[in-house]
Amino acid sequence: MQRHFVEELEAVKTNLIKMGSFAEEAIAQSIKALLERNADLAREVITRDERINEMEIEIDDAIVDLLALQQPVATDLRFILAAMKINNDLERIGDHAVNIAESALQYAVGKPVRPFADLPHMAQTTKEMLRDSIDAFIHADSAKARAVLVSDDTIDDLNRKIVAGLVAVIRAEPPLIEQALDLIRVSRNLERVADLSTNIAEEVVFIAEAHIVKHNVENKPPSVHRESASGQS
Amino acid sequence: MQRHFVEELEAVKTNLIKMGSFAEEAIAQSIKALLERNADLAREVITRDERINEMEIEIDDAIVDLLALQQPVATDLRFILAAMKINNDLERIGDHAVNIAESALQYAVGKPVRPFADLPHMAQTTKEMLRDSIDAFIHADSAKARAVLVSDDTIDDLNRKIVAGLVAVIRAEPPLIEQALDLIRVSRNLERVADLSTNIAEEVVFIAEAHIVKHNVENKPPSVHRESASGQS
Repeated sequence: MQRHFVEELEAVKTNLIKMGSFAEEAIAQSIKALLERNADLAREVITRDERINEMEIEIDDAIVDLLALQQPVATDLRFILAAMKINNDLERIGDHAVNIAESALQYAVGKPVRPFADLPHMAQTTKEMLRDSIDAFIHADSAKARAVLVSDDTIDDLNRKIVAGLVAVIRAEPPLIEQALDLIRVSRNLERVADLSTNIAEEVVFIAEAHIVKHNVENKPPSVHRESASGQS
Repeated sequence: MQRHFVEELEAVKTNLIKMGSFAEEAIAQSIKALLERNADLAREVITRDERINEMEIEIDDAIVDLLALQQPVATDLRFILAAMKINNDLERIGDHAVNIAESALQYAVGKPVRPFADLPHMAQTTKEMLRDSIDAFIHADSAKARAVLVSDDTIDDLNRKIVAGLVAVIRAEPPLIEQALDLIRVSRNLERVADLSTNIAEEVVFIAEAHIVKHNVENKPPSVHRESASGQS
C-alpha cells in the first residue's frame, strides 16, 4: 500500500509539471500571438486550452483517489491538498491565456498601438514566476518560492506603468481606444497569472516551513507561525 | 467518531454560509460605495476583507483536520473537497470586492460619468448568483445550481454592453477616460465574481448528480457522465 502511494504521488507530481508546462506555453504563445498580430496562433491557444481543462479533471480525479484509498495524514495530506489547489490555479492560468489570445485576435484586426517595451518584459517575468513556483513546489524549495512572492511587486508596478502608458495613448489618439483597451486587458490578465503563481508559491512556503504567508506577506514578518494547523494530524 | 464527524461537517457548512454572507455583503457595499461616491464606505470594504481572509484560513484548517482525523470517503470526501474549493473561491470574491472598492475610491475623486443603468443591474444579478450558489451547495440543490450556470451568460452580455457603452463615453468625452476605465474595471471584477459563483455551482451539480459540467456546459448535454470519478472510493 505504501509503495503504491509513493507511485501515485509521483504520478500526480509528474502530471502537475506537465500541466505547468502547458500553462506556461499557453501564456508564451498568447503573448507571441498578440505581439506578432498572429490570429492563427491565437486561435491555437484557445483550442489547446481544452487539453489543460482535461488534465485538471484527470489530476483532480487522481488526487481524490489518493485521498480516498490511501488516506494520507500529516505532511502527505498537506502536500496533496496543495497539489489540488495548484491544479486549480494552473487551470485558471490557462483561462487567462485564452483571454489574452482573445484580445490578440481583436488586436490583430486593428491599427497597432506603438510597441510597448514593458509588455514583453511583464510577460517574461510572469512566465518565470509561474515556472519557478511549480519548480519550488516539486522540489519543496521555499527559498525559490519566496523569490516568487517578491517578484509579484515588480509585476504590480509594471501593470500600473503599462496601464498609465495606454491611458496616455488614448488621450493622445482617441481612435486607438479599442486597441489600447485590448492591451490593458492583456496586462491585467498577466497580473492575474502572476497572482496565481504567487498563490502557488505561498502554498510551497506554507508546506515547507509550516508558516502562514498568505494574506500577510507585507504586513508581518515571514516567521509568524500558523496557529491551528501544525501537529494535529 | 461518526457523530463527531457530522458535527464538524455542520460547523464547516455554517462557517461557509457565514463567509458567503460576508463576501456578498462586501460586493454589495463596494458597489454602493462606487455608485454613491462614498470613499469611507470603500475603505471599510477594504479593511473588512481581513475578516474574510482569516475565515478562509480557519475553514481550511477545519477541513484539513476533518480529512486527517476522520478520513472520510466517497460522498463525504467529495463534499469536503468541494467545500475546500468553495472556501478558496469565496476568498477570491472578497479580493474582487476590494478591487471594486479601490476603483470606487478613485472614481469618487473625479467628475462622475453619467449613471449607467446596467452596472447596478449587473451587480444585483452577480450577488444573486453568489447567494444561490452557496445556497445550492448547502442544500445540495442541483436545480438551483443549474440556474446559476444559466445566469452567467446574462452577466457576460451585461459586461460586453457596459464596456461598449463606456468606450463610447471615452470617444465622446476623452477627459472622462480615467473615470470610464474605473467603471470598466468594476464591470470586469463583477464578471469574475459571477465566474467564481459559477465555479461553485458547477461543484454542486457535480456532487449532486455525479456529472461533469465543468468546461463543457455549452458544448455537451448536461447528462454526460464523468468517466473516472464515480464508484472508486
